[in-house]
Amino acid sequence: MEVVKRLKRELKYSGALIDIYSDTVELPNGHIAHWDYIHHDGAAAVVPVREDGKILMVRQFRNALDRETLEIPAGKVDSPDEPKIQCAYRELEEETGYRSDNLEFLISVNTTVAFLDELIEIYVARDLVPTHQHLDEDEFVDVVPMDLDELCRMVYAGELRDGKTVAAIMAYKAKYGNENN
Amino acid sequence: MEVVKRLKRELKYSGALIDIYSDTVELPNGHIAHWDYIHHDGAAAVVPVREDGKILMVRQFRNALDRETLEIPAGKVDSPDEPKIQCAYRELEEETGYRSDNLEFLISVNTTVAFLDELIEIYVARDLVPTHQHLDEDEFVDVVPMDLDELCRMVYAGELRDGKTVAAIMAYKAKYGNENN
Repeated sequence: MEVVKRLKRELKYSGALIDIYSDTVELPNGHIAHWDYIHHDGAAAVVPVREDGKILMVRQFRNALDRETLEIPAGKVDSPDEPKIQCAYRELEEETGYRSDNLEFLISVNTTVAFLDELIEIYVARDLVPTHQHLDEDEFVDVVPMDLDELCRMVYAGELRDGKTVAAIMAYKAKYGNENN
Repeated sequence: MEVVKRLKRELKYSGALIDIYSDTVELPNGHIAHWDYIHHDGAAAVVPVREDGKILMVRQFRNALDRETLEIPAGKVDSPDEPKIQCAYRELEEETGYRSDNLEFLISVNTTVAFLDELIEIYVARDLVPTHQHLDEDEFVDVVPMDLDELCRMVYAGELRDGKTVAAIMAYKAKYGNENN
């Protein structure tokens, strides 16, 4: 693979969650190109599996899509140094009101490789213990227990489209799908 | 679900692929918040399956991650109005050098629902016919035929992390995985 050389990185906008840069690069053919680059500190997500096999999903309004989505619980790290599994423990409890001491790594996803460096580590959580949902003051989330097979049906019907959730549900189905059927 | 009211949308930066906005919203509790919103015109991707069951992957340098990735072939629409299946036919041929008249819808993914509206439609392509790879002048891509089971192993090992690719490979595995084993 030929090498792309980065000549310059300019900060264009600093937002609440992200920083936007314009990179100037030299391509293997000698051409100069300008590429957008977005930095995000990273996040964690959880597939919380109840003893009856149901998965705890969250429903919330997503401004970028201008509609509600059905997603697995997730959230961004508190700081770039926070271990993502710690973020996963925290977000599970905050968003669903269940705690788990049994988190198992499932997959990692870079959400949008074309221009964003966000990495989400996704865990399966079992042995859920009820505690209390404690959302951020400006967070509005409903918890919805769902059957795995219904979630898979929704994915193939194009009704459930959140990328991390589709990847996680399908990775869980392919690995453990027969255990609950 | 309570309603979030958008009060203002301000363009902050217009890049090569994306436009960045800052939205001012009123939350259900009356608080005012500022949320980043990124617009992308959308894209299509393809899981190209050879007659021997191997999947044609592409390897390329990704500036945002500062490394090479292994992905399914994909690309953005030529215009916001272009049907995504037409984009899928084109990107398959451009990136892999194979044409298919047999595309079947697999899944759709919103890549990063927290702040980006990008939607990727993903198709399975069969009955591949060799033509010619014709990359954009500034595109550098290697085609790599891979076994489905090796791709699944890489996903679960955290070695293959591109979100659309993880979602597509796992959705394909969960739907068709036993056909080729």
